[in-house]
Amino acid sequence: MSNRILCFGELLLRLASPGRELLLQSPRLDVHIGGAEANVAIALAHFGHAVGMIGSVADNSLGRAAIAELRRQGVDARAVTVRPGRMGLYFLETGALQRPSEVLYDRADSAFARTPAAAYDWPVLLRGAQLLHLSGVTPALGQACADTAIAAARAARALGLQVVFDGNFRAKLWQAWQSDAASILRELLACADTLFADHRDISVVLGREFAGAEADRAAAAAAFDTFPHVRNIVSTRRLQHSVDRHDLAAQWFTRRGEIQLPAQRLDGIVDRIGGGDAFAAGVLHGLQHGWDDEQSLRFGLAAACLKHSLPGDFLALDEARVRSLMDEARFDVRR
Amino acid sequence: MSNRILCFGELLLRLASPGRELLLQSPRLDVHIGGAEANVAIALAHFGHAVGMIGSVADNSLGRAAIAELRRQGVDARAVTVRPGRMGLYFLETGALQRPSEVLYDRADSAFARTPAAAYDWPVLLRGAQLLHLSGVTPALGQACADTAIAAARAARALGLQVVFDGNFRAKLWQAWQSDAASILRELLACADTLFADHRDISVVLGREFAGAEADRAAAAAAFDTFPHVRNIVSTRRLQHSVDRHDLAAQWFTRRGEIQLPAQRLDGIVDRIGGGDAFAAGVLHGLQHGWDDEQSLRFGLAAACLKHSLPGDFLALDEARVRSLMDEARFDVRR
Amino acid sequence: MSNRILCFGELLLRLASPGRELLLQSPRLDVHIGGAEANVAIALAHFGHAVGMIGSVADNSLGRAAIAELRRQGVDARAVTVRPGRMGLYFLETGALQRPSEVLYDRADSAFARTPAAAYDWPVLLRGAQLLHLSGVTPALGQACADTAIAAARAARALGLQVVFDGNFRAKLWQAWQSDAASILRELLACADTLFADHRDISVVLGREFAGAEADRAAAAAAFDTFPHVRNIVSTRRLQHSVDRHDLAAQWFTRRGEIQLPAQRLDGIVDRIGGGDAFAAGVLHGLQHGWDDEQSLRFGLAAACLKHSLPGDFLALDEARVRSLMDEARFDVRR
Amino acid sequence: MSNRILCFGELLLRLASPGRELLLQSPRLDVHIGGAEANVAIALAHFGHAVGMIGSVADNSLGRAAIAELRRQGVDARAVTVRPGRMGLYFLETGALQRPSEVLYDRADSAFARTPAAAYDWPVLLRGAQLLHLSGVTPALGQACADTAIAAARAARALGLQVVFDGNFRAKLWQAWQSDAASILRELLACADTLFADHRDISVVLGREFAGAEADRAAAAAAFDTFPHVRNIVSTRRLQHSVDRHDLAAQWFTRRGEIQLPAQRLDGIVDRIGGGDAFAAGVLHGLQHGWDDEQSLRFGLAAACLKHSLPGDFLALDEARVRSLMDEARFDVRR
Amino acid sequence: MSNRILCFGELLLRLASPGRELLLQSPRLDVHIGGAEANVAIALAHFGHAVGMIGSVADNSLGRAAIAELRRQGVDARAVTVRPGRMGLYFLETGALQRPSEVLYDRADSAFARTPAAAYDWPVLLRGAQLLHLSGVTPALGQACADTAIAAARAARALGLQVVFDGNFRAKLWQAWQSDAASILRELLACADTLFADHRDISVVLGREFAGAEADRAAAAAAFDTFPHVRNIVSTRRLQHSVDRHDLAAQWFTRRGEIQLPAQRLDGIVDRIGGGDAFAAGVLHGLQHGWDDEQSLRFGLAAACLKHSLPGDFLALDEARVRSLMDEARFDVRR
Amino acid sequence: MSNRILCFGELLLRLASPGRELLLQSPRLDVHIGGAEANVAIALAHFGHAVGMIGSVADNSLGRAAIAELRRQGVDARAVTVRPGRMGLYFLETGALQRPSEVLYDRADSAFARTPAAAYDWPVLLRGAQLLHLSGVTPALGQACADTAIAAARAARALGLQVVFDGNFRAKLWQAWQSDAASILRELLACADTLFADHRDISVVLGREFAGAEADRAAAAAAFDTFPHVRNIVSTRRLQHSVDRHDLAAQWFTRRGEIQLPAQRLDGIVDRIGGGDAFAAGVLHGLQHGWDDEQSLRFGLAAACLKHSLPGDFLALDEARVRSLMDEARFDVRR
Repeated sequence: MSNRILCFGELLLRLASPGRELLLQSPRLDVHIGGAEANVAIALAHFGHAVGMIGSVADNSLGRAAIAELRRQGVDARAVTVRPGRMGLYFLETGALQRPSEVLYDRADSAFARTPAAAYDWPVLLRGAQLLHLSGVTPALGQACADTAIAAARAARALGLQVVFDGNFRAKLWQAWQSDAASILRELLACADTLFADHRDISVVLGREFAGAEADRAAAAAAFDTFPHVRNIVSTRRLQHSVDRHDLAAQWFTRRGEIQLPAQRLDGIVDRIGGGDAFAAGVLHGLQHGWDDEQSLRFGLAAACLKHSLPGDFLALDEARVRSLMDEARFDVRR
Repeated sequence: MSNRILCFGELLLRLASPGRELLLQSPRLDVHIGGAEANVAIALAHFGHAVGMIGSVADNSLGRAAIAELRRQGVDARAVTVRPGRMGLYFLETGALQRPSEVLYDRADSAFARTPAAAYDWPVLLRGAQLLHLSGVTPALGQACADTAIAAARAARALGLQVVFDGNFRAKLWQAWQSDAASILRELLACADTLFADHRDISVVLGREFAGAEADRAAAAAAFDTFPHVRNIVSTRRLQHSVDRHDLAAQWFTRRGEIQLPAQRLDGIVDRIGGGDAFAAGVLHGLQHGWDDEQSLRFGLAAACLKHSLPGDFLALDEARVRSLMDEARFDVRR
Repeated sequence: MSNRILCFGELLLRLASPGRELLLQSPRLDVHIGGAEANVAIALAHFGHAVGMIGSVADNSLGRAAIAELRRQGVDARAVTVRPGRMGLYFLETGALQRPSEVLYDRADSAFARTPAAAYDWPVLLRGAQLLHLSGVTPALGQACADTAIAAARAARALGLQVVFDGNFRAKLWQAWQSDAASILRELLACADTLFADHRDISVVLGREFAGAEADRAAAAAAFDTFPHVRNIVSTRRLQHSVDRHDLAAQWFTRRGEIQLPAQRLDGIVDRIGGGDAFAAGVLHGLQHGWDDEQSLRFGLAAACLKHSLPGDFLALDEARVRSLMDEARFDVRR
Repeated sequence: MSNRILCFGELLLRLASPGRELLLQSPRLDVHIGGAEANVAIALAHFGHAVGMIGSVADNSLGRAAIAELRRQGVDARAVTVRPGRMGLYFLETGALQRPSEVLYDRADSAFARTPAAAYDWPVLLRGAQLLHLSGVTPALGQACADTAIAAARAARALGLQVVFDGNFRAKLWQAWQSDAASILRELLACADTLFADHRDISVVLGREFAGAEADRAAAAAAFDTFPHVRNIVSTRRLQHSVDRHDLAAQWFTRRGEIQLPAQRLDGIVDRIGGGDAFAAGVLHGLQHGWDDEQSLRFGLAAACLKHSLPGDFLALDEARVRSLMDEARFDVRR
Repeated sequence: MSNRILCFGELLLRLASPGRELLLQSPRLDVHIGGAEANVAIALAHFGHAVGMIGSVADNSLGRAAIAELRRQGVDARAVTVRPGRMGLYFLETGALQRPSEVLYDRADSAFARTPAAAYDWPVLLRGAQLLHLSGVTPALGQACADTAIAAARAARALGLQVVFDGNFRAKLWQAWQSDAASILRELLACADTLFADHRDISVVLGREFAGAEADRAAAAAAFDTFPHVRNIVSTRRLQHSVDRHDLAAQWFTRRGEIQLPAQRLDGIVDRIGGGDAFAAGVLHGLQHGWDDEQSLRFGLAAACLKHSLPGDFLALDEARVRSLMDEARFDVRR
Repeated sequence: MSNRILCFGELLLRLASPGRELLLQSPRLDVHIGGAEANVAIALAHFGHAVGMIGSVADNSLGRAAIAELRRQGVDARAVTVRPGRMGLYFLETGALQRPSEVLYDRADSAFARTPAAAYDWPVLLRGAQLLHLSGVTPALGQACADTAIAAARAARALGLQVVFDGNFRAKLWQAWQSDAASILRELLACADTLFADHRDISVVLGREFAGAEADRAAAAAAFDTFPHVRNIVSTRRLQHSVDRHDLAAQWFTRRGEIQLPAQRLDGIVDRIGGGDAFAAGVLHGLQHGWDDEQSLRFGLAAACLKHSLPGDFLALDEARVRSLMDEARFDVRR
């Protein structure tokens, strides 16, 4: 069966200090495989979709381990090539109480970042697919990646795929090269049907600020004005009482209206990384199944909440376990 | 000294994923020894009682390790025999936030479940004891176990021992064979003096539902009507805000009245397994010492709360540490 | 560069059960290096100060490991000598919920405790320094240590150093020998400029109780009356809802007035040991930089809060990470 | 691409005590996925072949984890179905010096063992393949498995696939049911082209003993006489000086002659489990590539040796790493 | 059933660096319970004997954990009392190649060492027993322990028990106090029937050197001359090629003759601690069963060899596993 | 006190799979700090010398952890600066039997490699020192590092320091840029007094091969001819029977003669990395103390052997532990 959903992006190795220790406080690192788009791919695979990953990794045992993990999680990794260069890494120090988690990126000059746009044959790669997912991390990695992302989005639109774009704005990555983030992102959003973004992402693209209680609504309106293909603008809203205690809500803007879901309390967060990716995967799961927007949004929010209960970058739970949270919140041991 | 308290039931190996990981997310399992009745036995041994366990385990290194753990915890395990067959296992995936813990039983066809009723010589086994504790898990394991449990309860009553029965209704176990749970349980309750049960346990036995705010009270009344020997019906009431945040209250019904204890907040639960067993042990500790019911109930609730702070299936704290929580709640480091 | 800040006290090895397990529940101990005064020294070194530690350790691989850890954390350990005897240990069982943490001291007869007062040449040791920090743990260890602490404090005052004394009253240590805690402590406080102490510490010294809402204020006033050199009396106030959930406030009394900071909520404490030491270090950091009292107190409280998020006895964060909590409380992942 | 090599057999979870500890000496188990035929499949996948696994696992998180591990290692697991029942387990205690390793099987009544022969549609499953690998473990699991194995072997021969059979005689498994091992195995060998077996395996099948220095040669001759399709009889010869020190040689009998390879010294064995499976995979790798027998045998022996250096049940090294041992034995760090 | 074998001595906690690391190279210690006499008791319990331990431990969670471990291993620990004081510890750094293992004792002033001789009521403690085992470690701990050991040995002899004494000479312990090791040990040997000792132990007692190839034989002869009750003098002989590679032989002298067993090669030693204790237990096992001396010695040597394959201080294998090494050395995996 | 010995080079983080696992076989990495020159510095510090390290690390928590480890091991790290860029890493997979260990370098573009030669003020850095140690790894990292190394060596010679150069030829590093290894190395050797090199290192420099049994002798002669300042050419000779079993010998060539030490057997190697660095440190220790060459060489060989018994990159044993191996090889537990 051909893959109906494709995700394009970089695979990373997360090297994390154990528990709540500082980096190298004790001489050990726990390893997880992640990456914004891979996280979406893996969650969707666990929800039962045929999902393929597109990208490249280092031609060494680390890169091959990343591919193997994708396979283990049920993602078709045949379009992830191995190429000369190094593997993108990030070091993670998980916070607690009032001490924020720290991510130390060590991904510059990775095999993925150095892959030229010409290395991807998009018409072949996209053949038979229904949906392409990209995020704002990829174009931030350098000119080659930006070119590739734009080429991918354009090819997907030309071939009639849905194009989903997750903002994921990372200022530090953009600043590391002479980049014009706004103009690159505008080309990507011009191709997108569904946008995971809040007012901060949109303000980067449009070059104007949105403030106050209506910021997300105003930003969505402006994005709908600017980008004619965009139909959905979806995001979580996160209120952080401490590092391990958040309230997580969600919202969905369309050209016709909006849905606002009340916040879920997350008290005693295990791992916050990848919460947004699980959310995107959950929303896309509903969209793919033709659920109505509210159902899709509720599934997305449930998926996002559950990600916070799991160590690692991605959500590896099937649809039933997410639905059981949507349907009735039962917290006792299931025997 | 002869053992004054005897517990009859199966010993299990718990194989748990580390921390809050999914099962086999990383390639390691943490092992604990448990089992509802063994948990009661161990807690009572730590409270200072002479306690003996009755049962059987697999005739291999796993079974012998289970016996050894009982001994380590101060329980007399000489009446736990080794027999052909396999060891009962359960796999545990500890939840967090809105993700419930999952227990995967792998206990079918265990050496204990296959032990015929005739293998137990109850008059000999019960000699010199004052109290026999059983739970609803055992008769749910199959006809042989159901027969054995009834034989044990009847022998104990005939010999003048107190009979304590903890409901522990597990629908999945009963469903695995052509069982008539209600009629088996009725025979057991007919022998019991003290019952750890709430309205759900009682409704299974009596075949009628109890609903609403008065459900536990009404169920207790019905049980007192049906089972003439029952003097105490005791249970916790648990309100679950999330997987790791509960309110735990307790109640005690007698033919003369009832005691209701206000809820304790459990915020940041370490391990919820065995909470009910620690509660039962705490209440029995008070009963054995002739404390008044409220003192016994308060000790039981304190024991139950403390179990939630400890990894593993049982409470391994002495009386003094439980009492210090009853007497004054001091939470600072004790140096 | 000569060390401007000197800390005098014992280095200890903490041997802790993993996670929230009981001691020796599983056959492993996690090791941290600590000690009240060393914790202050290490935190100050991370804040950027030139700090030296004075003391002694056992002449074996444990003692040398303690010195090595000091060096690793940036403290000058050249004035920590190795001497015959054993290393001071403490075993820690970290609590949860309503189960308090337990410290089991095994520090009697340590190389440090047996070091005679004559082994320290204070004029040489203090040369070039600005501030000497001691705590009430040291004189509690025996007559030799009490004599040494008094000699150190007097020499420091004579040489014009600031003398900082942290109460740290540990009744069990004082009771282990025929000691007159009050008279020894009075000699130390007579030399002190800055006192980390609340009404309980002061009542031990002055032999009178302070009760009620005004207890700390009244105790401070009495201390100012009795000890003419004391200029600052600083302490945290801790309200403990459970073992892992505290509210932590702070106060600063001077002869001219007082500052009261509102409480910070600590919900999901990782490690409470050393919270007071981090607080002292934070306050001293401000004092050394000539910040006004409120700024210093706020920095101290932020340092104390952050310590609760870190495993181990000391705070190993630089000034910027503490300031970022003071300036704006942002809890999301920092990338 | 269709899978050219298919392996049929049970997936097992290995639960092993850490290091050289006794089972449950400390409360932890390390988990590996294995199974004789899966080990062959995985090694062949690492050598670059398109390999598919056929079988069934328990319909729970353990079974799904086993499938996921197959995928991670590059094996096509789409023909491994999930079925009601339990997962086959084995507990391993790794020996040392003169203390042999102990395997404690807990695989009775597994989902695989209970899968009826009718559940497999062999013409569909074998479509497009070139080679089917089975082993003597599968028919030993019970009548259903024996029937299935025979059906598979016959279908494969009928469809023109090569049939490879690895003896793997396990007396305990055969004894657990009323089985006629010899007659079942004869039906399997009647279909086989290549046999991994020594004189002990063959004596079980033929019901006669082969002794002395010529035992393997005589047994091979007898097998060639009895089973007209068999072309290759290949095995290792293992001399064990202690648990961690073996000499491993290899031999290959054909109807035309034989090859004997001298022994390799294995001194400081890390994990001996799966050595024979790695050997079989190595030999099959050569056969598939059309290498001459001696090259194939040398590759097989190198693969077997390398397996002993790796924790876990299977060899996860690519062809180049095995060849480098064949070509020149260089043991220094490769940088 | 009364205990037929009694062992008297100190229980220790071993705190060891993991693997082959230096002490505190990484911040973790692995804990084992040991002590020369307890090791003998535990091995004998695993061989099936009713064994009781006599001694005392610290009245804290460490001491109680030591008692619990004894119970877990099947030893009757009711005569091990809890007393004020600290727990005896030793730190272990396991060597490799040419780097010897290092033991750092931290056992001075332990609860056991401080227990006065009057605390033991030997006629009561020895009632019903057949054999008392002591070792030279105990009298080395101080005058109280020396007095107690002599009292125990004399009482045992007076009551008709066999007295077994294991030399275990530790110069550092004797040197730590003003002791006359020779005269104390002479009083103990005067009571002994069976002696585990070689020429070095005997030379300490008799105050003369034995050198050359005949040293053990000559020393045994001298001991038989001096101590009229001694019937057996048994020891291992160890040739050490490196830290992890030894040859271990054994010898048995009686007044009538001697037995010499050839050396076993131990190549890849896992843990050498407690090898002599396992040897003693093995020999005593044979003696208790009335085996002839050579059988007993062979069993003892096999037990000693197997101990080297196990982490921890004692041998926890049953008789059958030791016998299987005596009967035929089979090293392959046992399934 | 000024540092008498200075080492210049890069600090690396080693990220290693646990035990003998393949990289990322399980999701954990063990971290050690290393680097050829740092290993020498640390070993010399443990031997009692005042040693300073010169270099630079990344301005992040990884770089600071590397500096902290140097301090912990007793090296003066004040001349190691923090600079923008990434930290040099290497991943290690430790081999066994016939499977070689694999090093995967991920050190390109590190903060150290990017530090320009102008960033080092050699006259200031070398002030007061007696000896500068460099190795062939540093100039292989790129033109800036090569320039710096040459500048350092020239300045040292000009200032009258001894210059020690360790060949450490790494072909892969040199090949990564357009380098002329021979001409760069010649400039370094032109400054050196003592050379750690064998015929392979020298052949790279001189551009001619040395073969046969006399290769090292002939190469040394050629080097003495070419480089007038070189007085000592020292190296180990390693015969590798398997990955964990080597014979290690050592030789020392001077213009007057040579010393050959017979091989030590290393059977059961724990960690081979850094063996050559420990050797160099041992030889330099003797040279610094003015021992004769043979004593120095014997100390160096003992240090090298002992390194193989220790996990991690460097030898952290004091002089006494190395000497005890030189003086008499005693392998039993030291208590």
